[in-house]
Amino acid sequence: MTLRDLSADASLCSLNTATVREQWDLRQMVDGCVRHGIGGISPWRDKVQAAGVDEAARMIADTDLAVTGLCRGGMFPAADAAGRAAALDDNRRAVDEAVAIGAQCLVLVVGGIPEGTRDLVGARAQVEDGIGALLEYSRPAGMPLAIEPLHPMYAADRACVNTMAQANDICDRLGDDGLGIALDVYHVWWDPDLPAEIARAGRKRILAFHVCDWLVPTTDLLLDRGMPGDGVIDIPAIREQVEAVGYAGHCEVEILSTRWWHEDPDDVLATVVERHKTVV
Amino acid sequence: MTLRDLSADASLCSLNTATVREQWDLRQMVDGCVRHGIGGISPWRDKVQAAGVDEAARMIADTDLAVTGLCRGGMFPAADAAGRAAALDDNRRAVDEAVAIGAQCLVLVVGGIPEGTRDLVGARAQVEDGIGALLEYSRPAGMPLAIEPLHPMYAADRACVNTMAQANDICDRLGDDGLGIALDVYHVWWDPDLPAEIARAGRKRILAFHVCDWLVPTTDLLLDRGMPGDGVIDIPAIREQVEAVGYAGHCEVEILSTRWWHEDPDDVLATVVERHKTVV
Repeated sequence: MTLRDLSADASLCSLNTATVREQWDLRQMVDGCVRHGIGGISPWRDKVQAAGVDEAARMIADTDLAVTGLCRGGMFPAADAAGRAAALDDNRRAVDEAVAIGAQCLVLVVGGIPEGTRDLVGARAQVEDGIGALLEYSRPAGMPLAIEPLHPMYAADRACVNTMAQANDICDRLGDDGLGIALDVYHVWWDPDLPAEIARAGRKRILAFHVCDWLVPTTDLLLDRGMPGDGVIDIPAIREQVEAVGYAGHCEVEILSTRWWHEDPDDVLATVVERHKTVV
Repeated sequence: MTLRDLSADASLCSLNTATVREQWDLRQMVDGCVRHGIGGISPWRDKVQAAGVDEAARMIADTDLAVTGLCRGGMFPAADAAGRAAALDDNRRAVDEAVAIGAQCLVLVVGGIPEGTRDLVGARAQVEDGIGALLEYSRPAGMPLAIEPLHPMYAADRACVNTMAQANDICDRLGDDGLGIALDVYHVWWDPDLPAEIARAGRKRILAFHVCDWLVPTTDLLLDRGMPGDGVIDIPAIREQVEAVGYAGHCEVEILSTRWWHEDPDDVLATVVERHKTVV
């Protein structure tokens, strides 16, 4: 198995806008990607909405940037029917926005346990129901949904889909048409079943590949993710697994980090490019 | 399935000494358990060593306290052979200490990735080799080893055994004689395979049952565990699963928490007892 050679340029690198979300607006992010030779972008909805969806679509279309995803839909579980309906409405709007900006997929952070409950099993059922309902809207719209398994430390408050196996199971049950998985190494690197579940997912299901790193020590559950190369994740080993099943897309760099949010964003992007060429 | 009724007293409660480790020495912990009617204790090695192993054994033997475990052996992986040999030596001493204080098992926090490496697969192999080597010492000594799967957020630096499935796999391969699992709800509550893996483990393998709670938000990866009832873990549901396979031992309360370490330890124990009666 030969890994794709990423050392020449950053054309297969994509910038998830969370990486510089505290420094830049979408205009600056798009310009930054172009300036640094980064081939793709994956915006969060807040940045798209701040720019205006139509204007966001135009500014990206004016470039050669691939739109490797829109982050994020999901957050399906709610304590009551009204909450679930509101979540579904918002997810439909997210599909519309993803279509408008030409995103390759809408990334789903599926949500945790409804507030005031301890019902993890019920939350997981609500997630599957919610994705099923959203597919009725996203399939005709031609927008693939990418379930992102989140690290088990987010099971309570962000996503109760915590392994590739769970995501694969949902795809099995709801059908592969317009449904797949966003694999972020940060969330799944620890999983002893990862190689088997990547093989099970196959090319058809792996819609996005996100990279950052696990720092030792990690000082915050959410905002202390590492620049690739600064932590303990064997990123090339995981990339080799996804490429072995045929993944041919970008490597999307998504780093939620107060440390990197304090840096000059052009320095951040230069570092992203350098690490993409050398350690991803 | 009927859960055991814990509401009458705290005879089936065990105090893991980490819960009041900043306030008390072992003498005070033993006296505290007796004063609060707590039926068991599970000391960490630092407290046993500070008291002196023989004196620790005597002070516990003078009570009716069950010793539900000694915390902890493990930390097997090392960057070189000398490090692995030192770890094994220390683990043999831990077995001796566990025997001396009459512990029901030696809890193993197996260790993470060797410093300076990204070799998670190799670390897991080292862990299994280390447990295999330790069994040659612990089996003749009659001291059961209890593998504690730790939450995946500790995979890098504390324990690369992160699911019940992994622990069961190790038991399958190394044999059940003198080997089993310490199940802490904090580490495994998120796992969709938990019910199946508890059933797979069965009574013979579940050597200890630890409880605390997952707080939302959790502000620290290590020291922000919750008092049972203060978080989102459905503890009785998990207890029902372990009792369904025949677990008849104590519920050991282990709370690493800077918040509770700032409380009066008698108030902490009173709270432990009240929660044990009502929400465990």
